[in-house]
Amino acid sequence: MTRLPEEVHSNKAFGWAAKDSSGVLSPFNFFTRHEIVGEVTEIGCKVQKFKVGDRVGVGCMVGSCHSCDNCMNNLENYCPKMIFTYGTKYYDGAVTHGGYSNIMVVNEHFAVSIPENLPLDATAPLLCAGITVYSPLRFYGLDKPGLRVGVVGLGGLGHLAVKFAKAMGTNVTVISTSPSKQKEALENLGADSFLVSRDQDQLQAAIGTLDGIIDTVSAQHPLLPLLGLLKSNGKLVILGIPGKPFELQVFPLIQGRKLLGGSMIGGMKETQEMIDFAAEHNIKTDIEVIAMDYVNTAMDRLLKGDVKYRFVIDIGNTLRPSS
Amino acid sequence: MTRLPEEVHSNKAFGWAAKDSSGVLSPFNFFTRHEIVGEVTEIGCKVQKFKVGDRVGVGCMVGSCHSCDNCMNNLENYCPKMIFTYGTKYYDGAVTHGGYSNIMVVNEHFAVSIPENLPLDATAPLLCAGITVYSPLRFYGLDKPGLRVGVVGLGGLGHLAVKFAKAMGTNVTVISTSPSKQKEALENLGADSFLVSRDQDQLQAAIGTLDGIIDTVSAQHPLLPLLGLLKSNGKLVILGIPGKPFELQVFPLIQGRKLLGGSMIGGMKETQEMIDFAAEHNIKTDIEVIAMDYVNTAMDRLLKGDVKYRFVIDIGNTLRPSS
Repeated sequence: MTRLPEEVHSNKAFGWAAKDSSGVLSPFNFFTRHEIVGEVTEIGCKVQKFKVGDRVGVGCMVGSCHSCDNCMNNLENYCPKMIFTYGTKYYDGAVTHGGYSNIMVVNEHFAVSIPENLPLDATAPLLCAGITVYSPLRFYGLDKPGLRVGVVGLGGLGHLAVKFAKAMGTNVTVISTSPSKQKEALENLGADSFLVSRDQDQLQAAIGTLDGIIDTVSAQHPLLPLLGLLKSNGKLVILGIPGKPFELQVFPLIQGRKLLGGSMIGGMKETQEMIDFAAEHNIKTDIEVIAMDYVNTAMDRLLKGDVKYRFVIDIGNTLRPSS
Repeated sequence: MTRLPEEVHSNKAFGWAAKDSSGVLSPFNFFTRHEIVGEVTEIGCKVQKFKVGDRVGVGCMVGSCHSCDNCMNNLENYCPKMIFTYGTKYYDGAVTHGGYSNIMVVNEHFAVSIPENLPLDATAPLLCAGITVYSPLRFYGLDKPGLRVGVVGLGGLGHLAVKFAKAMGTNVTVISTSPSKQKEALENLGADSFLVSRDQDQLQAAIGTLDGIIDTVSAQHPLLPLLGLLKSNGKLVILGIPGKPFELQVFPLIQGRKLLGGSMIGGMKETQEMIDFAAEHNIKTDIEVIAMDYVNTAMDRLLKGDVKYRFVIDIGNTLRPSS
């Protein structure tokens, strides 16, 4: 994003400029290039939340209308006029360019503060992947200790869903097509159990055992077995958008009053809450930091699923590896 | 249902026998013959809720396990061992036969009390159709004054959904494929607005205006236009089960955090609450009382949709038309 002249902000020229920002690559063409961290180098005269030197992050949004029902309820993410950090028109007509620069200017409303105990690089992906799983765990009430929560898919979103759900005190079952991910799920991520979704015996044994499921898979997959895993009143939350519509048998919804919901990132208030929760519970993304000139190789590896779990680009070439 | 010997109830031989019961015909082969009303003629020694002469009703259920999570939470309707009033095996192995008899024996837990100001015949259909729409209005929070609620389909369920939703203080839009139902919806049932679901201009104008939709249609129909009518966080509640799966585009669920849910009748506590609410707000089903020998003609008329909105069979041939 180019620096906006103050007048464009109609006398509300708050903004900060971050050097040493890092961006994140993801294979999804819609939600890319919008997990950005850095330090404040300059502030506008009306900025209240930040000062020079503060550690800050920007997620998927850099603008919204601030007057609709969604905005009034801290849900800028559902504002019909929400401006994405990458690839949409900003107020001045310029197209937003996300984190692919060593300086960024943004309205302070769309920046969050990153506590000192969180490493910048491993925190960047929380700004999209993290809030995308955190928000539905809270909204759908899947955040109560003792609840049984399923996580479908163990990628960038899924591995964070396990970490957040565990930190909230729930009992987590990872559901995956790949038996090879069992060790990773149980030993490295701390899930309580692992279910191979293609194993009919395992599915059968787990019928009616989960209070909710966070489904992070974007590829086409059947919903019926997942609905079967839910208890009465259980909730299946879909976060990925397959290319084709799902086939939905409604009998499980009716017979067990189960529900199917969605969720998309989260509002700015909740994003800050998520970052603070991550700091409190020491939640970090598992990342691989790369230099900008490794990007093409990283894209090839992404397409093969060869990364645990996010590449983070060191745009400013100044980050040290996170501890 | 045949009268059960006391010993089958393992010393818990409560039960009441209703003479002059009326049954209800509906075109659905699953939920038929289970909207039954009458007066108590006899009680078992452990019956506490009723005495001889009381006006009572029985809905879709006559048994459940009384020990699962659902039963413990007054949701016998979702108990895996729930016994339907018609066509399933009772505890003693006999098949339940619903309301097609002039005497019925039932455990008092599955009978509700019908207040004096409600006519028996026009109350009978509340025991399935009524609770089927009342329960989701409550559960999904679509019962708050001022909320905007859509009702899809204007049949037995739909016309009661309009009456209950209006009595709860919501603003009701009837959504139908038939423009011919507009007058009925607005003038006779008291809906606030009417939307022809095949009219693209009307649909477009109503996008994002509803807090929730009660969808009573069992025929195959597209969900996408209905999801489009919902505000952010809106709820589409499906009550009918089409023969084929729905095609579900998840983007509206994700982009607006809309949800899709189901619901099936209601528990006994809530069924009594619904009947008491109907008594308080003078809610009656629109019915046509018929004699038993009219049943075949009634079935033909049902298949053509030629009834407003339920036939009620006067099994005992003793009911006077409701006022």
